[in-house]
Amino acid sequence: MSSVVHLIEEGREQREIRSLPSSHLQPQNAPYVHRVGVPRKQNLFKELGATVKETFFPDDPLRPFKDQPRSKKLLLGIQAVFPILEWGRSYNFAKFRGDLIAGLTIASLCIPQDISYAKLANMDPQFGLYASFVPPLIYACMGSSRDMVIGPVSVVSLLLGTLLQREIDPIKNKEEYRRLAFTATFFAGITEVTLGLFRLGFLVDFLSHAAVVGFMGGAAIAIALRQLKGFLGIQNFTKENGIVHVMHSVCQAAHHGWNWQTIVIGVSFLAFLLFAKYIGKKNKKLFWVPAIAPLISVILSTFFVYITRADKHGVRIVKHIEKGINPSSAKEIYFSGNYLLKGFKIGVVAGMIALTEAIAIGRTFASMKDYQVDGNKEMVALGTMNVVGSLTSCYVTTGSFSRSAVNYMAGCKTAVSNMIMSLVVLLTLLFITPLFKYTPNAILAAIIISAVIGLIDLEAVFLIWKIDKLDFVACMGAFFGVVFISVEIGLLIAVSISFAKILLQVTRPRTAILGKVPRTNVYRNVLQYPEATKVPGVLIVRVDSAIYFSNSNYIKERILRWLTDEEEKGIASYQPKIQFLIVEMSPVTDIDTSGIHAFEELYRSLQKREIQLVLANPGPVVIDKLLVSNFANLIGEDRIFLTVADAVASCSPKLAEEEQV
Amino acid sequence: MSSVVHLIEEGREQREIRSLPSSHLQPQNAPYVHRVGVPRKQNLFKELGATVKETFFPDDPLRPFKDQPRSKKLLLGIQAVFPILEWGRSYNFAKFRGDLIAGLTIASLCIPQDISYAKLANMDPQFGLYASFVPPLIYACMGSSRDMVIGPVSVVSLLLGTLLQREIDPIKNKEEYRRLAFTATFFAGITEVTLGLFRLGFLVDFLSHAAVVGFMGGAAIAIALRQLKGFLGIQNFTKENGIVHVMHSVCQAAHHGWNWQTIVIGVSFLAFLLFAKYIGKKNKKLFWVPAIAPLISVILSTFFVYITRADKHGVRIVKHIEKGINPSSAKEIYFSGNYLLKGFKIGVVAGMIALTEAIAIGRTFASMKDYQVDGNKEMVALGTMNVVGSLTSCYVTTGSFSRSAVNYMAGCKTAVSNMIMSLVVLLTLLFITPLFKYTPNAILAAIIISAVIGLIDLEAVFLIWKIDKLDFVACMGAFFGVVFISVEIGLLIAVSISFAKILLQVTRPRTAILGKVPRTNVYRNVLQYPEATKVPGVLIVRVDSAIYFSNSNYIKERILRWLTDEEEKGIASYQPKIQFLIVEMSPVTDIDTSGIHAFEELYRSLQKREIQLVLANPGPVVIDKLLVSNFANLIGEDRIFLTVADAVASCSPKLAEEEQV
Repeated sequence: MSSVVHLIEEGREQREIRSLPSSHLQPQNAPYVHRVGVPRKQNLFKELGATVKETFFPDDPLRPFKDQPRSKKLLLGIQAVFPILEWGRSYNFAKFRGDLIAGLTIASLCIPQDISYAKLANMDPQFGLYASFVPPLIYACMGSSRDMVIGPVSVVSLLLGTLLQREIDPIKNKEEYRRLAFTATFFAGITEVTLGLFRLGFLVDFLSHAAVVGFMGGAAIAIALRQLKGFLGIQNFTKENGIVHVMHSVCQAAHHGWNWQTIVIGVSFLAFLLFAKYIGKKNKKLFWVPAIAPLISVILSTFFVYITRADKHGVRIVKHIEKGINPSSAKEIYFSGNYLLKGFKIGVVAGMIALTEAIAIGRTFASMKDYQVDGNKEMVALGTMNVVGSLTSCYVTTGSFSRSAVNYMAGCKTAVSNMIMSLVVLLTLLFITPLFKYTPNAILAAIIISAVIGLIDLEAVFLIWKIDKLDFVACMGAFFGVVFISVEIGLLIAVSISFAKILLQVTRPRTAILGKVPRTNVYRNVLQYPEATKVPGVLIVRVDSAIYFSNSNYIKERILRWLTDEEEKGIASYQPKIQFLIVEMSPVTDIDTSGIHAFEELYRSLQKREIQLVLANPGPVVIDKLLVSNFANLIGEDRIFLTVADAVASCSPKLAEEEQV
Repeated sequence: MSSVVHLIEEGREQREIRSLPSSHLQPQNAPYVHRVGVPRKQNLFKELGATVKETFFPDDPLRPFKDQPRSKKLLLGIQAVFPILEWGRSYNFAKFRGDLIAGLTIASLCIPQDISYAKLANMDPQFGLYASFVPPLIYACMGSSRDMVIGPVSVVSLLLGTLLQREIDPIKNKEEYRRLAFTATFFAGITEVTLGLFRLGFLVDFLSHAAVVGFMGGAAIAIALRQLKGFLGIQNFTKENGIVHVMHSVCQAAHHGWNWQTIVIGVSFLAFLLFAKYIGKKNKKLFWVPAIAPLISVILSTFFVYITRADKHGVRIVKHIEKGINPSSAKEIYFSGNYLLKGFKIGVVAGMIALTEAIAIGRTFASMKDYQVDGNKEMVALGTMNVVGSLTSCYVTTGSFSRSAVNYMAGCKTAVSNMIMSLVVLLTLLFITPLFKYTPNAILAAIIISAVIGLIDLEAVFLIWKIDKLDFVACMGAFFGVVFISVEIGLLIAVSISFAKILLQVTRPRTAILGKVPRTNVYRNVLQYPEATKVPGVLIVRVDSAIYFSNSNYIKERILRWLTDEEEKGIASYQPKIQFLIVEMSPVTDIDTSGIHAFEELYRSLQKREIQLVLANPGPVVIDKLLVSNFANLIGEDRIFLTVADAVASCSPKLAEEEQV
């Protein structure tokens, strides 16, 4: 044991508060009072280095490199960029069997989804398939998640489509629209790589879980609403996403624009898809039923339309999917001109959202199988994949939650399942696309609707409501923002409320009055422990936050208000006058110049009321700053104690004396 | 004593963790272990109400109204808006004597300053005097500070001038410029009133002390540099504030544009002013020397120029100050058109900065004399004063630090000193302005330079450096931003760094390993108390922050990293394997859904390593959420303890047993 302690003690001395009288003034029979420790002043650059390291490299990425020969370091470095070199060496047939089954299952799910999602982004169907061919291959080599399935996803497709059509009409200026989409994809990738390289991965954490739940739910509703066009066979449909616009469009078309054949096809297959989903949920072993249901629907409905020639009766069909693999799009990206900036802006937003989704998926499955996903490395992988994608006619891709879940349940072992899926998509592009000609649009709408329903997480919403009401407000704000206004506004609301919550916490921290828990020597919040008793003549306040410029004034005034309240109560119940104010500083992890100013003002106010300020348990950073700023001297270093109990012990004798008089 | 406790206990019961085994599983002779308290679930609306109250009404403004008859409430309400009705009733001759002397002293200081500062805002000199006539009268009736002196101030004048001349040329379009200035003043007032009424006063706190120190210092340098124009008698001078532009202008003019007569006047009177300042600093009783020195300089230099007709030799003079009191400017404000929005934007920025300065001054002097200044009420007073000012040809006014300090030292008692000053300014406007005709511009430059030097607070900068390095970066960022680029950029840098600091704190909170402090039963940070010993087989980690979405993932990974580090150390020194991880949650004041997710993931990771997760001292909010989310059930409610000592006691027996094997 002691050797461990000595390891830490080495190279560090301890400055102690010299004049602490507890050691020499207290009578011999008084209880032992330990001194408040003051950590040794650290070298400025060391301190700065530690802060930078903790901020940007909290995961200690160089740990495996430590104490390794140079050649080993190089190998580890290459492996860090391409994890496939690491796990590939121990790859075997047993793993391949799992990956093969999983890969085939997700391929059957992704092909109809890809074609559908491309429509959300206002792109031709083949671009959805392109995006499930190249990016998964890149990710399989560079990514560290074993379960994440890469491809186009509904929310990002919708977001991209909405943002792009603000700038260019996707029907009139098809080519320019496509070029801007690739430009945005390129910059989405660059954004992701940059965030990863500069280790700014933590920015993704600023979108709170609650906000994401609300945003996803809202996006699901918005996406489902847009499907009413294909589902009801409406020709003239609004471009807006807001529910009001969409419902207006739907009602207007009701008199003449609905197509009953389309509706029959759509409704019956949607019912089939939802039933398949239900089966998969009931019996986890039948997970493959909902996974292949979309493909079956596509095949059946295509065959049905082909036989009945329903397309002649107003049932809209896919018509044409380009055959062949991804053409190069390197020359289509706008590297200059007006669209460069626009593409950049759209790319940054889409890239961040794509990142948020991928990181969430990566973390979820990693924690289920208990392996580590390095957020920053992941970002570099996802970014590279999108940059390469933008050069090969893919639009923004990321991890898909529904496909990753199927992948996980189908027993995937490594990213090889992504490669299998990619291969199947390749074969589809080469040989099968012409067969999709008669696929009705209604079936694609049904597939999207049945897929996005899974994004509405009512259980999570209920839990959020139970746990934190402010989180619930953020969640609902994002949800209604997306449903009623637009995707961007919903996103903006989500981010704003998330930030406001952080600021609120920092501006209005909690404070509590402490009392002595009976039969112990600990002091706790009297609201949590009503049995705790207050010490007569002493007010013990705990401040529950670091004291910074944004809250220092509030904290000072809050403490004075506690004091006034308690004094009034004391007078009402004939208590002795309060003579000591003990501030329990255990939760005060830091203090800045404004905070020290506020304490100086507090000290002066208390002096005028003849109340002595006493501090209990300041942490290492706080005690250091109190000493440096001379505040410790001002209140007297003998007024700073290790525990509240010690502080009370030092105040009480005096009070006891006076009570006897 | 007990009556106090009962007051609090009334109407509240306590839910207790039922299955806590500490009470029935522990052997009879084991130490007493107290249960973790769970506060009773509060009514949702009550809780919401309490949060809103704490956020927007932390000062409990309705406290004096409680239990009062209606007529009394009305009177108190009127007194709340016009504090003069309260303090006016106890006003007497002794107080008036103090106010009269103080008022005359600050009047002699403000008249030359007003004329000088008007030039900073690119306005004619009389507008400075106007701004020291009407607004102080309004403030005297509505404000609650007894020491603050109202009028135009250097930093706000410079800021306003800079922002306005971006839009309109102050020389070519004089009238439009003036109209925009009044429009901005109007909206500055509206901004201040709005912030006050909606009780958003805490927004001012988001500009950290360090950022304000840097910004003020930078503004002082920028203002002083601009004075080189008047000081050296240069004709063609840059409009930019950046030091590079200004020095370029000065050097270019060196060959032909400097006027030696001007320089002689400027330098000699600047020396006089600085000497007077020095005397006032040396002997606090001679505070009136620097206070009247500017007026003496103006009188002497005007007389000198008049006699020698130096204005014929290139010494630039004031030439003309409009005689008479403030004309109405109600019709000059742009309430429509293009300039409305511009005026609004400039007004918001100028209003916020004016507010920051006034609140800082109000608080400083209130804490020196120990009276309360109500921030939100202050804002309403300052806002009203600026709105009325904008209707009576005044530009943005606020509290002046230098004049307030003189007011305080001259023994002011109430806001009557502001009224006296206002009266003197009125007389000046009516009778004396023509006498300023021959006042040389150089003297005004000298007055400004000697005044703004006081804004550079090197002592504060040094203290900031000592206490907090990040604060120092914010300070320097603001300073260099103002000096090298412009006032707005400096301001932007100051605000950004202030925010970044808050976010950093929330994203990367501290964690610490705890050990047992010898001869006590308390567990503290081993870095602060190197003599503290770790318990073998147990790792105790303290998390020093609320656990929110922005840091939950970091905290989880940091705890796991501590574990890995300690396990490696343990193996190196043949320690028993770690079997328990105790998380001390005293500083964890809140947790949200993301935080609980992170803890669930932590629990699962620990389970795989066969380590038991134990929690110590969760606060009322945290224990409530742990129960609601079912996490307490997951880890076992018997794994949650009141103190670390209790938790260790429950882990150790097992370990002791195993050690015996």
